[in-house]
Amino acid sequence: MEQKLNDILQQINYPSDLRKLPVEQLPEVCEAVRRFIIEQVSAHPGHFASSLGAVEITVALHYVYNTPEDRLVWDVGHQAYAHKVLTGRRDRFATLRQKDGLRGFPFPTESEYDTFAAGHASNSISAALGMAVADHLSEVNRKVVAIIGDASISGGLAFEGLNNASSQPNDLLIVLNDNKMAIDKNVGALYHYLTRLSTSQRYNQLRYRAYRTLRKHRMMSDRLRRSIIRFTNAVKSLFSHRQNIFEGLDIRYFGPIDGHDVIKLVSVLQKIKDMKGPKLLHVCTIKGKGFEPAEHESLDEETSSLWHAPGKFNPETGELIKEDNSGSPLPPKFQQVFGHTLVELATADKRIIGITPAMPSGSSMNLMMERFPARAFDVGIAEEHAVTFSGGLAKEGKVPFCAIYSSFMQRAMDEVIHDVALMNLHVVFCLDRAGLVGADGPTHHGAFDIAFFRVIPNMAVASPINEHWLRRLMYTAAEKYDGPIMLRYPRGRGELVDWKCPLEEVPVGKGYCLREGNGDTAILSFGPIGNEAARTIELSGADVAHYDMVFCKPLDVDLLTQVFAKFKRIITIEDGVRDGGFGSAVLEEASRQGFRGTVIRLGIPDEFIEQGTCTELYRQCGIDAASIAEVIKS
Amino acid sequence: MEQKLNDILQQINYPSDLRKLPVEQLPEVCEAVRRFIIEQVSAHPGHFASSLGAVEITVALHYVYNTPEDRLVWDVGHQAYAHKVLTGRRDRFATLRQKDGLRGFPFPTESEYDTFAAGHASNSISAALGMAVADHLSEVNRKVVAIIGDASISGGLAFEGLNNASSQPNDLLIVLNDNKMAIDKNVGALYHYLTRLSTSQRYNQLRYRAYRTLRKHRMMSDRLRRSIIRFTNAVKSLFSHRQNIFEGLDIRYFGPIDGHDVIKLVSVLQKIKDMKGPKLLHVCTIKGKGFEPAEHESLDEETSSLWHAPGKFNPETGELIKEDNSGSPLPPKFQQVFGHTLVELATADKRIIGITPAMPSGSSMNLMMERFPARAFDVGIAEEHAVTFSGGLAKEGKVPFCAIYSSFMQRAMDEVIHDVALMNLHVVFCLDRAGLVGADGPTHHGAFDIAFFRVIPNMAVASPINEHWLRRLMYTAAEKYDGPIMLRYPRGRGELVDWKCPLEEVPVGKGYCLREGNGDTAILSFGPIGNEAARTIELSGADVAHYDMVFCKPLDVDLLTQVFAKFKRIITIEDGVRDGGFGSAVLEEASRQGFRGTVIRLGIPDEFIEQGTCTELYRQCGIDAASIAEVIKS
Repeated sequence: MEQKLNDILQQINYPSDLRKLPVEQLPEVCEAVRRFIIEQVSAHPGHFASSLGAVEITVALHYVYNTPEDRLVWDVGHQAYAHKVLTGRRDRFATLRQKDGLRGFPFPTESEYDTFAAGHASNSISAALGMAVADHLSEVNRKVVAIIGDASISGGLAFEGLNNASSQPNDLLIVLNDNKMAIDKNVGALYHYLTRLSTSQRYNQLRYRAYRTLRKHRMMSDRLRRSIIRFTNAVKSLFSHRQNIFEGLDIRYFGPIDGHDVIKLVSVLQKIKDMKGPKLLHVCTIKGKGFEPAEHESLDEETSSLWHAPGKFNPETGELIKEDNSGSPLPPKFQQVFGHTLVELATADKRIIGITPAMPSGSSMNLMMERFPARAFDVGIAEEHAVTFSGGLAKEGKVPFCAIYSSFMQRAMDEVIHDVALMNLHVVFCLDRAGLVGADGPTHHGAFDIAFFRVIPNMAVASPINEHWLRRLMYTAAEKYDGPIMLRYPRGRGELVDWKCPLEEVPVGKGYCLREGNGDTAILSFGPIGNEAARTIELSGADVAHYDMVFCKPLDVDLLTQVFAKFKRIITIEDGVRDGGFGSAVLEEASRQGFRGTVIRLGIPDEFIEQGTCTELYRQCGIDAASIAEVIKS
Repeated sequence: MEQKLNDILQQINYPSDLRKLPVEQLPEVCEAVRRFIIEQVSAHPGHFASSLGAVEITVALHYVYNTPEDRLVWDVGHQAYAHKVLTGRRDRFATLRQKDGLRGFPFPTESEYDTFAAGHASNSISAALGMAVADHLSEVNRKVVAIIGDASISGGLAFEGLNNASSQPNDLLIVLNDNKMAIDKNVGALYHYLTRLSTSQRYNQLRYRAYRTLRKHRMMSDRLRRSIIRFTNAVKSLFSHRQNIFEGLDIRYFGPIDGHDVIKLVSVLQKIKDMKGPKLLHVCTIKGKGFEPAEHESLDEETSSLWHAPGKFNPETGELIKEDNSGSPLPPKFQQVFGHTLVELATADKRIIGITPAMPSGSSMNLMMERFPARAFDVGIAEEHAVTFSGGLAKEGKVPFCAIYSSFMQRAMDEVIHDVALMNLHVVFCLDRAGLVGADGPTHHGAFDIAFFRVIPNMAVASPINEHWLRRLMYTAAEKYDGPIMLRYPRGRGELVDWKCPLEEVPVGKGYCLREGNGDTAILSFGPIGNEAARTIELSGADVAHYDMVFCKPLDVDLLTQVFAKFKRIITIEDGVRDGGFGSAVLEEASRQGFRGTVIRLGIPDEFIEQGTCTELYRQCGIDAASIAEVIKS
């Protein structure tokens, strides 16, 4: 069996190979692709459950559509592994998410089958609409399909795209890959109910009877009869207790259909492929489909995110392979310290509220949600709303901790400015995944936050060098400060195994000396990257002073005055864009104070940084201990 | 009559005075408020037609709700003049939009009746939801009402708010003020949807009949009867040919009702005020209601934006009072040059597409829309979609000119990064209203764009010193460049009456010397603010060199090398935030090159700048000719 599946996959290097097969063979292809993904991801960690759920959709789309001439636009690449397997990248799959290897998300430079960047959610409809309109203008007869998940479609950008879909000439197909229905019991029942309704005799009869009854009683005019499709949808809504939002936006709605029945999918896609105008196909899938442990756990809300990106595991049993920390215990992740500290603060201060846009476990906001369910809000993929909602809470005296990954915070810069900073509201922005994030690559690096936030009036910007400082900064931001403040901390583990420390106030806008020096050089660092500098100094034994500035804004002007007086050469180091960031803030102050020495700024250079391990990327950007040592020596 | 209306208004200083009146007197109050607004705005220009349309809603809300204890959250302050008149600010109305005068938009520091900033569209639902949830947690029994226009509700942020409204415990009321008109023609499916909802007047009767009929014929079970609200809405949808989107989002929908019948409004508000859970009241109004010329023109799509903010006019006849330019002809606005030049470029190059989010006349994109209707897109208030849609167009070989006001571009920074720059797509971002904008104040100043855009990899950033350079840069960006590029230009008139010039290529990343100098000082300017510097030099006769850098990125490193070699003192000047912007880019390069002289950076200081004339604000920020002269002398 395994061998047979393997043989099938060997025949399919590109979708053109797939299209040569009879439709009856597609279930086997799906099975082969699924086995391959399980095999590969168990050994080379990546996003797992979403991609398993999208196998049949992917096969059906490549079978029916003439890719790459027809365009598939994926929304968030989590679901796109089968797409990668089928489009000439199977042999390189083992390099997934490694430096110079396959990317975790679709990206045009990797393959002509990847039509658009797909790291941040909710962009597919707008991008696909742009492509479809361009084709229409160029009189190119090509199909465009956007594939979007039920979580991504809640983002404001997706709605703006939906709202515009019917305004422009296009035949766009939006495939809504809905796996939330399978997680949520309640809605899952509705899905089965709807599925039955759509296919059952009873539904058809009811539809007809309702139609006839209304007509008999002259409640259905000729004009109304023309809107028969919408009428049946209204009846469907009546029985499903829901309204159809998509029809309201002038997008023809089809579904829901079983997203794991590949033959049915092919049949439906073939039918609607050539229909004019924008349309949406609602497809129900199960996250983790075909891998029993993932499928099983996806049904349980508590554990449903476990198999989202599980790390290494046993492909037979589903047993997770834990990191080997049999030696000394490892420091906790910054996220964990954040989560526990937030609960600690919230226990003492009722004003504190937690907000996360769809990242409760990633950010550890789930700890707050468990402990204070009424005071913690997962708002879904909706960064803009998360920020403005926080502004509203702060306006009425609450102290919101608004936790958003740094790169996703880019979605809400206007709200940070207009709905928080302008009114000087007391919101604590917690920017998780700040700086280089490793394997997720360029869409996910949190490179721009320092440069963006530090130029916003009223805003304070700080970063803790370790877990103790994170706790102190969180305490200070909540209890000893009144105004907008941003704290940034990286993905992954901190420095201290014993991370618990008393919650003490730190002076806002003050840095401190980590290590005195009598040479001509001082290092000024911002955030945990300062540990690289400290390691450099320790290893090399160079007589270099080291200051942890803690705050990029307000900058510790007094401390800088001392530094400028004592040293001739200043090296700034940050895990963010080199131009416009912390180093530039120091440079501006140096210029203001008339410092005549040299300022060398280290940080992320002016280019998009690809994926790799953080160690590799720090090296590449010249902010690892070895690179700093070279700068010191130079 | 006039006297009587005036007397009525004199009695009402605060909503508490209003609430003492019998409901029958409210139509007179509305008439008095309306006359007052017409009188005032005709002499002191401001936003006009929107506020006239919202008079009855405003009076009814303040009459029914216990403001300021209850919270009214306005979405975009255009509609809030009646609110200002009724909340203790009538006497200061003549200072509207002037320096130190009343603001054009609600703002909390101006009045306790203003609950939230309301300069950028679509934020009211999220903000009000935050307030309502905070009240719920604090067990404060207070009502919160968001008032949002039909144009603003199409923004992604508003949708995110709607999508979250039913997830949290709150009794929020959303008033949808539907005048079928954005500043320009309204766009998007939602707009058409609302129109259809409003015109289906028969549905109340029909709803009842359909319900009765279905029940009689046993098509309604006991279980279904419980879902009576959803049922009636399904029937309502049937007759309105649509599904109700708001009910689909679990928000109770009421309406549409006549927004100019103040007594009806009061009655409906009183009925729904104490209902539990989130609800939406759909109110239909006429923009410019009660002022015949505005009302008349609002009905005509071509001229509908004329009375949005008309400038001075005769309050009796509606005749617009034109600027006195009987002397020499005035230079055109940058916007006009942009519009005409875009048409010129698009005539020669079919790849060129125009995109604007709801600002066709403000940005002059309407010229492109008239000439090439198939190649110009007004996407409604949807900045994020505008950018990602542009990315999709560019991906398929088009050259989109995406024109967005600088301060609104803050809404789409992530899309600029993720959906354009990361893929190095050829999109020309045209940032109108860049720099200080004058009377619209802090929400509208385009202060952050240089600092934000210059740190994005692959991005070029340029600004023309005058209309000729705007034309050259537009030509170069479209025809001689391939990648993301941002052009910024200010609100208002340029410098040159004779603005037409040949469309010539300019070298990307090159500045030029405007004036040689043999002293120790050189001024480096970026954009039209350079004209202030030129005036300073001309008037003072100082021996100061002046370079127009044209590009902030790529920076002209060679030219800077020459400048650093020749001068000891560099003064940079820009109409944008001083920290992190153009001056900082020069400083970074100076540091890199080891420049030992002084760099003085002039720009907007690190605070939110209030309203005033641009002349006043340049002075305040120290970037006017006189301030520059002082710096030169110092």
